[in-house]
Amino acid sequence: MATEPVLIGGQWRPARHTSTIQAVEPATGETLPHVYPVSSWDDCDAALTAAAAAASQLERRTPDVIAEFLAGYADRLAAKSEEICSQAHLETALPAKPRLADVELPRTVNQLRLAAAAARDGSWRLATIDTASNIRSCYAAIGPVAVFGPNNFPLAFNGISGGDFAAAIAAGNPVIAKAHPLHPRTSQLMAQEAHEALQSAGLPLGTVQMLYKTSRQDGSRLVGDPRLGAVAFTGSRGGGMALKASADAVGKPIYLEMSSVNPVFFLPGALAERRTDLVNELAGSSLLGAGQFCTCPNLFVVIDGVAAEAFIAELRTQLDSRPIGTLLSGEVLDSLATVVSALQDAGAELVTGGQPAGPPGFHHQNTLLRVSGERFLRAAERLQTEAFGNATLAVVVSGIDEAREVASRLEGSLTGSVYSATDGSDDELYTQIAPILKRRVGRLLNDKMPTGVAVSPAMNHGGPFPATGHPGFTAVGIPASMRRFAMLQCYDNVRSHRLPPWLQDASPNGTMWRSIDGRWSQDSITKV
Amino acid sequence: MATEPVLIGGQWRPARHTSTIQAVEPATGETLPHVYPVSSWDDCDAALTAAAAAASQLERRTPDVIAEFLAGYADRLAAKSEEICSQAHLETALPAKPRLADVELPRTVNQLRLAAAAARDGSWRLATIDTASNIRSCYAAIGPVAVFGPNNFPLAFNGISGGDFAAAIAAGNPVIAKAHPLHPRTSQLMAQEAHEALQSAGLPLGTVQMLYKTSRQDGSRLVGDPRLGAVAFTGSRGGGMALKASADAVGKPIYLEMSSVNPVFFLPGALAERRTDLVNELAGSSLLGAGQFCTCPNLFVVIDGVAAEAFIAELRTQLDSRPIGTLLSGEVLDSLATVVSALQDAGAELVTGGQPAGPPGFHHQNTLLRVSGERFLRAAERLQTEAFGNATLAVVVSGIDEAREVASRLEGSLTGSVYSATDGSDDELYTQIAPILKRRVGRLLNDKMPTGVAVSPAMNHGGPFPATGHPGFTAVGIPASMRRFAMLQCYDNVRSHRLPPWLQDASPNGTMWRSIDGRWSQDSITKV
Repeated sequence: MATEPVLIGGQWRPARHTSTIQAVEPATGETLPHVYPVSSWDDCDAALTAAAAAASQLERRTPDVIAEFLAGYADRLAAKSEEICSQAHLETALPAKPRLADVELPRTVNQLRLAAAAARDGSWRLATIDTASNIRSCYAAIGPVAVFGPNNFPLAFNGISGGDFAAAIAAGNPVIAKAHPLHPRTSQLMAQEAHEALQSAGLPLGTVQMLYKTSRQDGSRLVGDPRLGAVAFTGSRGGGMALKASADAVGKPIYLEMSSVNPVFFLPGALAERRTDLVNELAGSSLLGAGQFCTCPNLFVVIDGVAAEAFIAELRTQLDSRPIGTLLSGEVLDSLATVVSALQDAGAELVTGGQPAGPPGFHHQNTLLRVSGERFLRAAERLQTEAFGNATLAVVVSGIDEAREVASRLEGSLTGSVYSATDGSDDELYTQIAPILKRRVGRLLNDKMPTGVAVSPAMNHGGPFPATGHPGFTAVGIPASMRRFAMLQCYDNVRSHRLPPWLQDASPNGTMWRSIDGRWSQDSITKV
Repeated sequence: MATEPVLIGGQWRPARHTSTIQAVEPATGETLPHVYPVSSWDDCDAALTAAAAAASQLERRTPDVIAEFLAGYADRLAAKSEEICSQAHLETALPAKPRLADVELPRTVNQLRLAAAAARDGSWRLATIDTASNIRSCYAAIGPVAVFGPNNFPLAFNGISGGDFAAAIAAGNPVIAKAHPLHPRTSQLMAQEAHEALQSAGLPLGTVQMLYKTSRQDGSRLVGDPRLGAVAFTGSRGGGMALKASADAVGKPIYLEMSSVNPVFFLPGALAERRTDLVNELAGSSLLGAGQFCTCPNLFVVIDGVAAEAFIAELRTQLDSRPIGTLLSGEVLDSLATVVSALQDAGAELVTGGQPAGPPGFHHQNTLLRVSGERFLRAAERLQTEAFGNATLAVVVSGIDEAREVASRLEGSLTGSVYSATDGSDDELYTQIAPILKRRVGRLLNDKMPTGVAVSPAMNHGGPFPATGHPGFTAVGIPASMRRFAMLQCYDNVRSHRLPPWLQDASPNGTMWRSIDGRWSQDSITKV
């Protein structure tokens, strides 16, 4: 079978490749028919050159044209939903409905539309104008962005269609997408739509490019290349750290989303008040997508006692009775089995599950482990190894002091949740835990599981290392996510007609918010 | 003579040191009397522990108290101006007046006052509230910040008093200041005032600590320590990159200001129109502070011809006739002499100067070098070695195409300037150069030398690598500079009374700007 083409320099063209890959259907373990190239450096080099050329051309296009592309692409994805989602289902085993067709594809389309609106509006630039000194600054495109998408969200975080893609394009940058090799055909279907949408909008065709896979070495070289402006990566800690080293060495911004255990604290009053509801919430959240969420609650904390034991027992029953989801790949299964075993080596006891669940396809028993607070504290780092998949660790602490101690030993996570009684009886305990927890997470939740990541301007899908590489940036939530792919540009005494439209006295569109002499305003500057 | 104490954990106490240093008076080359410790790791460790404790305490203080400290400290520095400036003059040879007393100290005081106002106001947090989903986010303190100050601004960029210090404290973080060993007593005098001001304001005394020097190894260890939230460094590329490696390895934000040649393009119409004025501007800017400015114009570009030759000849006359400034240290002198020599090895010719100017003290002749565009392009990297001091390189290009080529080979700089004719006759050439230049600099200037860095909210004192480590951040300009020392914190479904005051429905002070459902507002949220 012929090797599928790559999208480079505005064309679907044969790859210059070193080897090939094929995807596997996770539900059956069978190899899928299409053959995809592992690109050589030649392909990367050609993509970088084309991206640099596209970046210069994009600078001369108005944000409206970029918005038109994003909106047009969104419409095309919506129109092809059925084909894309059924392909994504085949390649990932994620449920076609509701997950892919009713949740993830609409989310993807919504993100692209929000990015289009943000590009048009311009408020994302945080334009700041000091009229007295005629100094004006704003965020502006940073240059070509390489986006490495993860395995677990084939649409909403895909390098060719997801949040990073949308943010990078909306900020005015070309994207080189590294499709995830577990879902190449899904990525290809979407890339075809992106390519068509570029043509409709009249944007440079080099604005969107896609490779399926490179060697690790070429990936690192790509990331360190001077033609690239920034990098976004969602995936494993090992992969992310390797790319980070390459980007850091040449001072290039790289945004990473790597691993996160997303601790959940259940305070005693909450357990007393609504134990069964909480068990249902936790079971649902930890098994969502077979636990393959970046915000999956991999660790929860309860205070030792009858209520905690009842909670764990009920959770065990839930996990035992709920269906076992299919994992994304044999590697995910192997890694999960290895981590479950490593957690036991570090002192955790198995409550239920703990074993691969056998072919056909990739499955692992729904798994619950437990460890005392005291043992946790003796091996805190090892016991925070992310079990990517349907496994969760209960940390049973002796009291609030040990809970505080556990909280203070948590590594950086995307989220941290605290469940407390509605009548205020947990409030004193809450004030003991929350201040410690909130320093260690990007998003603090009350009475809510972390798996929902609303696409809201107030969202933070980020957090301290090692959850990400910098605690000041979010990967979800437009417009803030766009500023990752931007440089700060200042114009000092620059003549008015030479300024970009959004820094001139007249408002470019009547809607853009600008900070003018310390006041946020949508108005034009009027001379006094 | 006794070794001077360090400021650790709220006390002036004897250092646990490995060796000692003494400062040298640059004007005479004579060693100054006081003896300062090179701290061992024990001192660093103690400072980190105290800083972590102070960070927790600071979280429970209101921004008003932090503001009170900053404003009180500013007042104290203003009151001690004479003593501080005469000491800084002794240790740096920078003119006591106007430079230190009339410019740098007032700038320092102003920055601290602006930081106080910004802390009180809160708008720096970019609070973003989505009322429908009850998701609320804002920037918040990141944790203890280590500030490594440079040699060339003993007050306004000093780790104990400068822009990074003010920004880090105003964002709610303790600071561990690494005083520059060239001006220890100046730093000590100011640290005493900071210590007193902390007491007056009732802030934890561990909020401000100071060491004079550590080994390189301990400096790197300090930067990588988990108790530290972020790092700011202003200094040499070598020193910065060593610290960056240590911070990057553990995913800790580090903000660097390293080196910058600050290119200036003189277009033909500008030379024809006002040559002598431009010569005066350039000579003044390149000799300011003996050329020891991060924004010193180290490289300028003119188009070959009679006007360019006349410009260079006039500039030479100016440089020959202007007084020679004293350099900060023997190391600065040696480094300058080495770079001037290296530039010649790389193909530049000496127009004037080029030699050390002899004792007593540290002096180098005002120096002008020149190189053709064609030779520049053959050794572009070597010819951009920063000559820190009173030396400037003229690049004489054959025409606008070569000027574009030179612009496209420029490394990241803090600034780039273009001088053009006032009658518009250079506008076509401007459009050829400016788009290339602006991608490579943090601040684009028209008809203005880069050495003035206004403390304006619209300022960007930053730029692409290697000028800094990330092109999205500025070191000057409150409030933007504060966001370097902040993490993004999101509250998802958090109960109202548990939110920080600035994310609750009621405005905390009536002045703070918040983005509420997409609109910037100073108002409280009113229920509908």
